[in-house]
Amino acid sequence: MMRVPVAVLGASGYTGAELLRLLVDHPRVEITALAAERAAGARIDRVFPHLAGRLDREVEPLDPDQIAPRAEVIFSCLPHGASAGAVAALIARGRLVVDLSADFRLRDAALFAEWYGTHPHPELLAGAVYGLPELHREELRGARLIASPGCYPTAVILAAAPLLARGLVRPRLVVDAKSGVSGAGRSPTQATHFSEVGEGVRAYKVAGAHRHTPEMEQELSRAAGGVAVRITFTPHMVPMTRGILACVYGEPSDPARSEADYRAALIEAYRGEPFVTVLDDGLLPDTAHVRGSNRAHVAVKLDARAGVVVAIAAIDNLVKGASGQAIQAMNLALGWPEAEGLGGVGVFP
Amino acid sequence: MMRVPVAVLGASGYTGAELLRLLVDHPRVEITALAAERAAGARIDRVFPHLAGRLDREVEPLDPDQIAPRAEVIFSCLPHGASAGAVAALIARGRLVVDLSADFRLRDAALFAEWYGTHPHPELLAGAVYGLPELHREELRGARLIASPGCYPTAVILAAAPLLARGLVRPRLVVDAKSGVSGAGRSPTQATHFSEVGEGVRAYKVAGAHRHTPEMEQELSRAAGGVAVRITFTPHMVPMTRGILACVYGEPSDPARSEADYRAALIEAYRGEPFVTVLDDGLLPDTAHVRGSNRAHVAVKLDARAGVVVAIAAIDNLVKGASGQAIQAMNLALGWPEAEGLGGVGVFP
Amino acid sequence: MMRVPVAVLGASGYTGAELLRLLVDHPRVEITALAAERAAGARIDRVFPHLAGRLDREVEPLDPDQIAPRAEVIFSCLPHGASAGAVAALIARGRLVVDLSADFRLRDAALFAEWYGTHPHPELLAGAVYGLPELHREELRGARLIASPGCYPTAVILAAAPLLARGLVRPRLVVDAKSGVSGAGRSPTQATHFSEVGEGVRAYKVAGAHRHTPEMEQELSRAAGGVAVRITFTPHMVPMTRGILACVYGEPSDPARSEADYRAALIEAYRGEPFVTVLDDGLLPDTAHVRGSNRAHVAVKLDARAGVVVAIAAIDNLVKGASGQAIQAMNLALGWPEAEGLGGVGVFP
Amino acid sequence: MMRVPVAVLGASGYTGAELLRLLVDHPRVEITALAAERAAGARIDRVFPHLAGRLDREVEPLDPDQIAPRAEVIFSCLPHGASAGAVAALIARGRLVVDLSADFRLRDAALFAEWYGTHPHPELLAGAVYGLPELHREELRGARLIASPGCYPTAVILAAAPLLARGLVRPRLVVDAKSGVSGAGRSPTQATHFSEVGEGVRAYKVAGAHRHTPEMEQELSRAAGGVAVRITFTPHMVPMTRGILACVYGEPSDPARSEADYRAALIEAYRGEPFVTVLDDGLLPDTAHVRGSNRAHVAVKLDARAGVVVAIAAIDNLVKGASGQAIQAMNLALGWPEAEGLGGVGVFP
Repeated sequence: MMRVPVAVLGASGYTGAELLRLLVDHPRVEITALAAERAAGARIDRVFPHLAGRLDREVEPLDPDQIAPRAEVIFSCLPHGASAGAVAALIARGRLVVDLSADFRLRDAALFAEWYGTHPHPELLAGAVYGLPELHREELRGARLIASPGCYPTAVILAAAPLLARGLVRPRLVVDAKSGVSGAGRSPTQATHFSEVGEGVRAYKVAGAHRHTPEMEQELSRAAGGVAVRITFTPHMVPMTRGILACVYGEPSDPARSEADYRAALIEAYRGEPFVTVLDDGLLPDTAHVRGSNRAHVAVKLDARAGVVVAIAAIDNLVKGASGQAIQAMNLALGWPEAEGLGGVGVFP
Repeated sequence: MMRVPVAVLGASGYTGAELLRLLVDHPRVEITALAAERAAGARIDRVFPHLAGRLDREVEPLDPDQIAPRAEVIFSCLPHGASAGAVAALIARGRLVVDLSADFRLRDAALFAEWYGTHPHPELLAGAVYGLPELHREELRGARLIASPGCYPTAVILAAAPLLARGLVRPRLVVDAKSGVSGAGRSPTQATHFSEVGEGVRAYKVAGAHRHTPEMEQELSRAAGGVAVRITFTPHMVPMTRGILACVYGEPSDPARSEADYRAALIEAYRGEPFVTVLDDGLLPDTAHVRGSNRAHVAVKLDARAGVVVAIAAIDNLVKGASGQAIQAMNLALGWPEAEGLGGVGVFP
Repeated sequence: MMRVPVAVLGASGYTGAELLRLLVDHPRVEITALAAERAAGARIDRVFPHLAGRLDREVEPLDPDQIAPRAEVIFSCLPHGASAGAVAALIARGRLVVDLSADFRLRDAALFAEWYGTHPHPELLAGAVYGLPELHREELRGARLIASPGCYPTAVILAAAPLLARGLVRPRLVVDAKSGVSGAGRSPTQATHFSEVGEGVRAYKVAGAHRHTPEMEQELSRAAGGVAVRITFTPHMVPMTRGILACVYGEPSDPARSEADYRAALIEAYRGEPFVTVLDDGLLPDTAHVRGSNRAHVAVKLDARAGVVVAIAAIDNLVKGASGQAIQAMNLALGWPEAEGLGGVGVFP
Repeated sequence: MMRVPVAVLGASGYTGAELLRLLVDHPRVEITALAAERAAGARIDRVFPHLAGRLDREVEPLDPDQIAPRAEVIFSCLPHGASAGAVAALIARGRLVVDLSADFRLRDAALFAEWYGTHPHPELLAGAVYGLPELHREELRGARLIASPGCYPTAVILAAAPLLARGLVRPRLVVDAKSGVSGAGRSPTQATHFSEVGEGVRAYKVAGAHRHTPEMEQELSRAAGGVAVRITFTPHMVPMTRGILACVYGEPSDPARSEADYRAALIEAYRGEPFVTVLDDGLLPDTAHVRGSNRAHVAVKLDARAGVVVAIAAIDNLVKGASGQAIQAMNLALGWPEAEGLGGVGVFP
């Protein structure tokens, strides 16, 4: 079988590294180019010694014109804002692009402008597909520009969408999510300095200040059949490297329903899904159980006394929350088996 | 100055150790007896080598009759159920008892029975004072039986009580709290085994299954002037040893209020409090900033778009959430300066 | 291709779990039986939720007679002492057995008795092959009883054997090794309780008290061509789940040699090895770079001023130090490609 | 009692913060000035929220001329190189200076030049006292310029000096030490980024490349009565914030001695020491047991079979390895009780 040539832009960050980890074992692709601004000129296994023995390609400068001729699929792990330009250039050359930045996730350019600034390529927004296979599988088949979801939105949407889609909870949700530190990227900052962030937990960007808020509302509103869903979102940083645990609190639309009704909704929604496990009764999602895997664990509980439904999801932010999901979307776009190259079991303990 | 003799029951657990850490430097007390079932016969600095050089007393068996003659104040760190009997015996002998178990926290014996089983000494419930100085300072002066609050309730009540007391939020709250592993005690279990709990985050006892729920509702309802407050409570275990971060979500009773109004309520409530800091605007509570200290950091934010108030508190579960607060209550009961022996700044980083 | 049926004894511990993680993706085997004493009757994905969606077989009681007819290869993850009996029964039935316990690692029954007690099956010792492919590849081809190496010995031998084999260092070594907590197994103890072991580092079984000492000396002496190698071994427990870093200190046999000479020895020894990487100059082994992978990273430095050679190795104790290496040995024993099923890149960060 | 005015230069780093934590509760001093380059103009409890409620002084620019008139004692936490100038200016004005940088630790300006570059104030070296009270108590009384020891040297010297002073081990040592990440300071770098350094362990500056090497050799040689002691030093970074564990390996000068002989040497050396505990037989040092305290835990074991003595010390790098020890030295210099302000028990767990 001919392998399809793929390139990774922004290969020196964590989502880049995670793409490489998975792509070197993907049976249908061949990595033909790695680009990154700072690391240009270095061998990738010097940048990421965990790749030693598996990948020793040199990182090259970020130049879409140089890369397009050598790749049919390009993953962009460039930062928000920087990504759109490269994506546009590669789309113009007919490449399949999976963009892991936020640049093409919001369908409404005005909303994008509110959170990120003026969009440099609004003309591409309509054609971009939000790369969450559980919600947009059909649109992903044959897609050319895939906007890979944010890590928090992936967890939150997987927990909440089936309940909203079936009208089981009211469209106002409290979302309290906890992330490992790798979600903040590889650039050292005081907020991600080991001695500051270790051995403590804290919320940040509380009360709707986090940019993943509009993305969640967009997708949950679509899932709810167009009903505007409003959330308050509190992200936390916990002292671990990988993983997101999201708790979504909603009010039952009908207080007579039992916990089994909510659970049945999840089971129905995810029947046959290759990467979503609705946990058996008695188990609850734990990020340690999905570490290194593309799998999401979800569960739902009813606090009948308080009148609150709690839906919970655990993912690995770098796999199902980023690079694994991007590969899953590529597989769909190219008509390949959806789980190709993504079989790995989570690394526990 | 004569030092008051104090004893610690259950000295071989974490709240016992933390009491000892603080009491050895308390200028008005002298530790005269340590008791614990399993560790009986061992020197305490073999049980807890961090006490080496400061305390080398031998641990004795748990026998209130043996201990009462040698102590005026007794802290009980015995488990729920086991504590009540020892407490009753000591109260009968006229001792001041600070009970760190749950046995005397609920005022309603029927409610206690629902969550913990039949109360062995319901006759003592009416005289017990809930040992949260910020809410019950006056009752604590001269108290003889102090029910020291649970760790989660301390954080949650400190965050939410001022808002409820002023009627600023409706009496239905979502509480999402994250605890370090020391909150689960010192007995090894699979759930607290390093390799299981490290590098991951998970919720447990979701949807109102945690026994701290009725304690929080009792105290928040009292704070709300008798209005029944209902909460849904989700505790989490995060991979750190100490600390609790509680996020409390409520609905504004009047949507016209600004964030400043909520903040003013906290500032007013905690003016002059020796151990509660309402953080300056722009800061958010972080358990790393209260580690090893008796201080609580609190803040409140308004998500005006979503119509949700988020109150947040950070404490060290073993200090303000247990042993430090117990000493603070003892200080009040004996008419001593409230902060005596509790001055230590948090150990950061 | 027909898949070979394999069974795992002791499937409810960490090395069992790690075998399952790897074996479910091994293209030449099929898992046909899982046995474990305590977990018997439970579905394996309830015991280990990270296997959900990939393996849902029920765990059965430990009965070699029941298991032998259904498996050609059996991995035993039973504890030292308990393993030998099961292994003997399965060997007698003609099965290929890979034993991850210490029961067949020492060739000398008297030495075994000194450290572990009387050996129950000394007649099998002569036929057992020490399962470190880098030293015993040829013996492993066709082997029927493989004694899979201990985690510490794997790291230490990989660092030191090439230097001893070439006579570059004197046969007296100081070995200072640091392990993640998973090396202590899955049974909860006070020493592995999160709050005790987290946020601190400590040595244990200092001064030759650890049972891996004779195993290292046996293999290093063989590597040294029969010269008796003597080591002092200090294991440490560090607050992480996986990984071993071993530093081996030796005295140059010829002070005139340069660092490059020692490095050349490692490069020569490991040329063509599928799972050992001699790091480029300027890099040093880091357990984070081999987490979840079967790879070992090794390096050597010369402190010319002090006259000391420092050889360093990093492995994942559960993969190259246990289950991955056991599969590597099985591959060799069955004449399969050595790296089959072991390709996975380390999970970094 | 009049409090002595003290100032801290470099107050925005970790050793600065730790000084402040301890000094706010020191009964004989008053903090009158805080200086730091980057944080100048900010309130210290915004820089370090854990100080909220205890210290709210504003940080001022680094200007010795401005600070000297307001302080009798100045602690300098400035980086190596930057410190010497400020120290010289303050010494010239007759102030007592405790310098936590390396600038005055080496007595030999030529040796300093080899490791750090030309010394800007070699004229002050002769008058500086190495601030390790256990070795230089008498010199510290009345000292005016105290060179506070490095964190690694403190641990290593406390473990090894008594053995060398009594000629019990040969003067060639292997030193393998493990440090928490706070030892690398507060400036974010890739090497201290949470996701890089968490969940892994690694050596760095192997084979004598670490600048603490000459400092250890200088002091150990002095302890050995002038015999030149040579060490090979391997520092490691482990995934915890605070703590150093040092293992020192030496060869017995007389193979006939028993473990008890080595232990007796430590006990004799540290009899009456306020901050060194020789652990009871059966216990080993653990950094978790000295966290937040000025105490060192030491132990020694003999591996008679291998002919190696292993001396081990655990300290908190920020307390006994830096700021606590600096205060201990100040207490001695001013003729105060040596343990004043340093009583705190370690924060365990």
